Amino acid sequence: SNFTRAPYQLNKLHECDSEIFFLPNADAKIAATTDSITEEISTGLYDDPYLIGWMTVMVNLSDLAAAGASPIGLLISEVLPHNFSLDSRTKLQNGIADACRAAGTYILGGDTGFGKYLQLTGTALGYLNDRPLLRKGCRPGDILYVSGFIGRGNAYALTKFNPADEIEFNYKPSARLREGELLSGLASSCIDSSDGFITAIDQLMRINNFGFDLNSNWEAAVEPLSKRIFKYYNLPNWLALAGHHGEFELVFCIPKEKEQEFLIRAHDQNWYPVQIGIVIPETKIYLPLYGRKTELNTEQVRNAAHLINSDISDYLECLIGIDKELQLLP
Amino acid sequence: SNFTRAPYQLNKLHECDSEIFFLPNADAKIAATTDSITEEISTGLYDDPYLIGWMTVMVNLSDLAAAGASPIGLLISEVLPHNFSLDSRTKLQNGIADACRAAGTYILGGDTGFGKYLQLTGTALGYLNDRPLLRKGCRPGDILYVSGFIGRGNAYALTKFNPADEIEFNYKPSARLREGELLSGLASSCIDSSDGFITAIDQLMRINNFGFDLNSNWEAAVEPLSKRIFKYYNLPNWLALAGHHGEFELVFCIPKEKEQEFLIRAHDQNWYPVQIGIVIPETKIYLPLYGRKTELNTEQVRNAAHLINSDISDYLECLIGIDKELQLLP
Repeated sequence: SNFTRAPYQLNKLHECDSEIFFLPNADAKIAATTDSITEEISTGLYDDPYLIGWMTVMVNLSDLAAAGASPIGLLISEVLPHNFSLDSRTKLQNGIADACRAAGTYILGGDTGFGKYLQLTGTALGYLNDRPLLRKGCRPGDILYVSGFIGRGNAYALTKFNPADEIEFNYKPSARLREGELLSGLASSCIDSSDGFITAIDQLMRINNFGFDLNSNWEAAVEPLSKRIFKYYNLPNWLALAGHHGEFELVFCIPKEKEQEFLIRAHDQNWYPVQIGIVIPETKIYLPLYGRKTELNTEQVRNAAHLINSDISDYLECLIGIDKELQLLP
Repeated sequence: SNFTRAPYQLNKLHECDSEIFFLPNADAKIAATTDSITEEISTGLYDDPYLIGWMTVMVNLSDLAAAGASPIGLLISEVLPHNFSLDSRTKLQNGIADACRAAGTYILGGDTGFGKYLQLTGTALGYLNDRPLLRKGCRPGDILYVSGFIGRGNAYALTKFNPADEIEFNYKPSARLREGELLSGLASSCIDSSDGFITAIDQLMRINNFGFDLNSNWEAAVEPLSKRIFKYYNLPNWLALAGHHGEFELVFCIPKEKEQEFLIRAHDQNWYPVQIGIVIPETKIYLPLYGRKTELNTEQVRNAAHLINSDISDYLECLIGIDKELQLLP
């Protein structure tokens, strides 16, 4: 954060899911983003090399999507353990290749080294035809939307860390690139749900200095199978939004005067985003829960996430504790 | 290597130190490259956080330089161990910031995560005004040059792995960006000496399917202090070029008909590159050594490098063994 910023960079720190800058030698805007898959591997959340390859591509493309950029391609830096089998390596490369194919983009190059642990770092590059989507920009009265069902990221994590014979859950999210392109010029704020929905709106709250009042649609936006899984584990639906592992949907705000145009263009693409709340002047987050309008302390939820690297079951216990407090509120 | 290539990418696999592509939405050529600092940290070669930060920037900028590109900026992905001190973190950031300042470029953004080991991955982006420099393109008769003194990378490694009280050696290489920009449109092949000089010419040999006949200047091109260090350890000078740790000079070929223009333009910039050999039709590498024209088996040198991750002293012994064979040649 102390680094001198490039004079041709458009976004300030944390203002956008990608970094946006003008080219010094041409009239063109570029988006770039980088992300390492580290904790997901060390905690065991991702243990299938195919999924690791797929996610290395998708997490980065999702950041392009949330900036309204179209992908040019990716660079991948792989650190492979010495005992990484040829079969694992093939699966990893297939995951990378399939994700690129699914998104209509390419691997431009990369670097392979060896280390004690598997680690993948992706960098995605994109171009912008329209204005970039920023996290910063929403105003009170703007409508909050999600691009699709949420909760799958945490449902997957739940089944992975608490396996049960009766439960099988497939996790293979896709970056919402087409949707991001449509949103540029329409949305006043946008972020992806890479760390879960609550983390996403908490980040939007802090960067915009406004809050959100969620409507009762939030429960309908929780993906049906994820709901069943949370029920199986005897956990409330809202924890599917609170956990720190997301599904790479877009969370965005639309100014009221643009809502009609937005919905028409979205429905033209057979895209049915969910209206989930409204931007409010207070920096608080409310949702209908346990039969009343409940204020959610997102700082508490955010702090709980620090437990992920030390003990996953402590993390879940901490979230359950927050839920109990909410239930007991007058 | 099995990934589908982007139709707008200019270079094939391994043909350039950076990946070069046209923008889909503007008439502009972009260079991009990514590199992780992994083995250098795990072997203990880099243990100063300042140096690690500096190198994360410079290794990537050096790949831009070898492609003739001018830097736009970098993205850095940091994986920090949980016990990484605030002081170490400050040093790391200072190394990154100083390297950017020295090269006149910027950090565009990045990502910070936590893991068991420190690991830094940089991605550099650049633009091209002229033709890109490629590794591939030289022809027999072209003149081989190095941009400056070589051997410092291996002299540093030698002192680091075999410390002696009398020896102090500073290592802080700078990417040859201005020189790379000058070379684009003049050089027929270019690569950086990131893995040492011999590895660089071995790579040029294999991608071009031509060889190199080095002249006696190679010994004058070994940096004087590095020579003293190799002498102190009782090792021959040529091993300062054979080791797998480089000094980030440019190794390039100039067609004869462009040599005069090249030298005039270089000297105008107060740059005095060293003419070190000539491209030959045979895929062999010769150098004057032990009083005769000696063929160097670069495959043997390359294979020795596999020992770096298992045992550094085995690696040095292996290189000494290759030297003994060369001394005994009739």
